[in-house]
Amino acid sequence: MSSYPVALFAAEAAPRARKSIYPEEFASRVGDRIKRPLGDLFGLTVFGVNLTTLKPGAMSALRHAHEKQDEFVYILEGYPTLVTDEGETQLKPGMCAGFKAGTGNGHHLLNRGPHDVVYLEVGDRTPGDSAEYPDDDLRVLKSEDGQKRTFVRKDGTPY
Amino acid sequence: MSSYPVALFAAEAAPRARKSIYPEEFASRVGDRIKRPLGDLFGLTVFGVNLTTLKPGAMSALRHAHEKQDEFVYILEGYPTLVTDEGETQLKPGMCAGFKAGTGNGHHLLNRGPHDVVYLEVGDRTPGDSAEYPDDDLRVLKSEDGQKRTFVRKDGTPY
Repeated sequence: MSSYPVALFAAEAAPRARKSIYPEEFASRVGDRIKRPLGDLFGLTVFGVNLTTLKPGAMSALRHAHEKQDEFVYILEGYPTLVTDEGETQLKPGMCAGFKAGTGNGHHLLNRGPHDVVYLEVGDRTPGDSAEYPDDDLRVLKSEDGQKRTFVRKDGTPY
Repeated sequence: MSSYPVALFAAEAAPRARKSIYPEEFASRVGDRIKRPLGDLFGLTVFGVNLTTLKPGAMSALRHAHEKQDEFVYILEGYPTLVTDEGETQLKPGMCAGFKAGTGNGHHLLNRGPHDVVYLEVGDRTPGDSAEYPDDDLRVLKSEDGQKRTFVRKDGTPY
């Protein structure tokens, strides 16, 4: 018998306390975003799954492209706008999108509507991952062991 | 610009042609199960995501436990019965469950109801994975390169 739950209602999972790890001027742009980590509750380590809610005006993240991490989203409620290098795509419940690692094609979801957007997001935890932010003066520096990330400007100066 | 779609309706994705890789006597027990691979359509490689439908009487798989692959399911429609070492748990839409690699706690979903069960399933593709089947006389043998799998009886004799 394990110490993990057998199953649970995703919407009843506890929200992540930490709102955003971006520097403050970027964190405030993300808006009211609630992430409920689900995979962690079952002890999963290879990938993470979150139930994420974007209140009106919120975004999933700054537009970014991962170097090593594949990502996947499935829309449960609401009508987010997906922004990629292909432009804007209106998503609806039942739609999904995948973001392959290493393409450099940045993506994020914007909630421009009057209702909440709720979606499942999956991302693996491949070691040594990093991300690019094509629209913002932002870079990620990793510590030697890959555990700690620091955000700096694209010229390397700190925030 | 990539050759992958930006987004799509999951229910409109093509079903996987191959029904099951189990030996026939086990494959027939799985029943009418439809898997729509989603992650593959976006070129994802680190993990797979399927939209899976279980018609009445169908099961997700034989009850099994992965050695290295974490798994996660999120119920979209219907009322599947989850079977684990903890017994039977009735799942409902909006519920989720995760199956941590290496625990030996076998799991599967049964559709004992009159309506379809539809769920998202996520599994990583960690190399060298294998699986145990606690309820059945079944083992998986892997080829040297880990690419090919062969099902045999627990005493090693072939089907």
